[in-house]
Amino acid sequence: MSKQSPSRTEISSLGEFGLIEHLTDNLAMRQKSTIKGVGDDAAVLKYGEEVVIVTTDLLLEGIHFDLMYTPLKHLGYKSVVVNVSDVYAMNATPRQITVSIGVSNRFSVEGLEELYAGIKAACDFYQVDLVGGDTSSSQQGLVITVTAIGSAPPQQITYRSGAKQGDTICVTGDLGAAYLGLQLLEREKQLYLSQPDMQPDLEKQKYIVGRQLKPEARKDIVEKLAKAKVIPTSMIDISDGLSSDLLHICKQSTVGAFIEEENVPIHEEAQLMALKFKLDPITCALSGGEDYELLFTVSPNDLPAVRLLPDISLVGEIVDKEDGVKLHTKGGNIHDLKAQGWKHFE
Amino acid sequence: MSKQSPSRTEISSLGEFGLIEHLTDNLAMRQKSTIKGVGDDAAVLKYGEEVVIVTTDLLLEGIHFDLMYTPLKHLGYKSVVVNVSDVYAMNATPRQITVSIGVSNRFSVEGLEELYAGIKAACDFYQVDLVGGDTSSSQQGLVITVTAIGSAPPQQITYRSGAKQGDTICVTGDLGAAYLGLQLLEREKQLYLSQPDMQPDLEKQKYIVGRQLKPEARKDIVEKLAKAKVIPTSMIDISDGLSSDLLHICKQSTVGAFIEEENVPIHEEAQLMALKFKLDPITCALSGGEDYELLFTVSPNDLPAVRLLPDISLVGEIVDKEDGVKLHTKGGNIHDLKAQGWKHFE
Repeated sequence: MSKQSPSRTEISSLGEFGLIEHLTDNLAMRQKSTIKGVGDDAAVLKYGEEVVIVTTDLLLEGIHFDLMYTPLKHLGYKSVVVNVSDVYAMNATPRQITVSIGVSNRFSVEGLEELYAGIKAACDFYQVDLVGGDTSSSQQGLVITVTAIGSAPPQQITYRSGAKQGDTICVTGDLGAAYLGLQLLEREKQLYLSQPDMQPDLEKQKYIVGRQLKPEARKDIVEKLAKAKVIPTSMIDISDGLSSDLLHICKQSTVGAFIEEENVPIHEEAQLMALKFKLDPITCALSGGEDYELLFTVSPNDLPAVRLLPDISLVGEIVDKEDGVKLHTKGGNIHDLKAQGWKHFE
Repeated sequence: MSKQSPSRTEISSLGEFGLIEHLTDNLAMRQKSTIKGVGDDAAVLKYGEEVVIVTTDLLLEGIHFDLMYTPLKHLGYKSVVVNVSDVYAMNATPRQITVSIGVSNRFSVEGLEELYAGIKAACDFYQVDLVGGDTSSSQQGLVITVTAIGSAPPQQITYRSGAKQGDTICVTGDLGAAYLGLQLLEREKQLYLSQPDMQPDLEKQKYIVGRQLKPEARKDIVEKLAKAKVIPTSMIDISDGLSSDLLHICKQSTVGAFIEEENVPIHEEAQLMALKFKLDPITCALSGGEDYELLFTVSPNDLPAVRLLPDISLVGEIVDKEDGVKLHTKGGNIHDLKAQGWKHFE
């Protein structure tokens, strides 16, 4: 029978990105159809005129979602959104998805119908085809893996690596609300567990709860950029928080960045909830994650066109690598931006 | 907080295939790049001259593998094999894979290195590129999802639906050994749990244990068929057992089938082990599953060319739908073939 290896390194010592880099180091690419492998929002493959984009996400009960406050329909919807968001982050159009689920006998067929109703609603909204998948029983909880396939003209694909000094850093929508929605749901869950007859009233926090439970990918922005003939120099979707995702762009583009706190978009409801939780709103925006907004950079030439588009905030500028990745606070201080993001292994 | 729905249907009442059909019923396909969605070994997409094949599999600890007797390196290898096997079953060539894993802190970095060493060894052997994936912590056990992407000239793609009356039914390699390898490993595990100082001796059963722990996909057969200019009329990989997979072909091709027991290939070591376990070898071959051999049908025109190829058994003939799907036993009896396959939900 197999035994534990004598030398043991804890996964937490590497962290998520360290672990991925470690495990996918020195990967040989041998297929001429592989344009880009590991290391961006999605892989890029060439099978014809258009390039093909592939991205996949694994969602695990207890890690990525809590069924105590997540309706299965919303979960199905969100599991598609987080994937198509990665395709949009390549400036491409999602076309197909596959969905694999592992379910324990805790779940009924009606429960799975709800899940699939959400998946199908997202397919309708994003106009993608559900083309395959795998269904299995699970001994533990619900496991969902979605793979999204998309396409785009090759010259339109936007990597994380193209940001240049002098580019403007743009963010769509607003940040931090999904994280605050999660904090609120977690608090209500604890209240409910201690007093089951108390029903939570989330009506006044519809926005932040909606951002957590039913996020949308920024299909509209990718379409508007195309219409305005703007191809960002780099792009990523904000799943781990502005800090962490901006650091990905800076690392892969070998540049620094300077962010103005006062330009970082935060919804009023998120502002108020942050104060209630005694959290700094800007910290929620920088490190909260799960916003599924787009973070992108545009060259000075494209700036006038971008200024005309709705729901985009110009939050800073790409600077020399030597100048680091900094936040200029409203109080006039300058801080280093640090990756927070994903800490499940800790 | 969300509540259980008042009406509840147990998943086990539908079974795996019933569940998939139920959940993916009436799916609209709206992308012109979608040639084939749910319902074959893989999806078929058109993005250029060649069509693109996408398939995905979810492997869960405790359901699909037991780490007590599965070395992580073998598990990594097998998780790629089961996916590329689906691409070969479309008569296509695998090109890329994505791998998503969920791991609990029970696992060390060294353990994951072993897993990836197996994944990379399979990528080397099958010449596929690992182009992406997702890594997450898990509260439960190890979860692995692999998505394989392949391509082929459109006219070469082989669906489950093309079998015609009079076609010969072919099987590669031999069947039932992987199932018997699993039975042996399970027995040794129980012995080990009751007497931990006893080390199992599996040397004499290397073949069947190898078939379970390190299966291979039939890359060689797909290449030889292409060289011989034979395009099967239908094809599927045998993951659930000959009966179950043949029934898929018959259902989708609207035909019946007649199988000769004496032509069904069973390895000598599997024969012997079946007898030791007081199992009928043909039952193991028909219902065992996990062989990852190819089951295909060829038209009478192609039969002479197929006869010249190595490691292919001609096990029967496609007949009229009205004649059903039958087995002609060595003893001269005729039985209906029934789907056994996957029963995790029961």
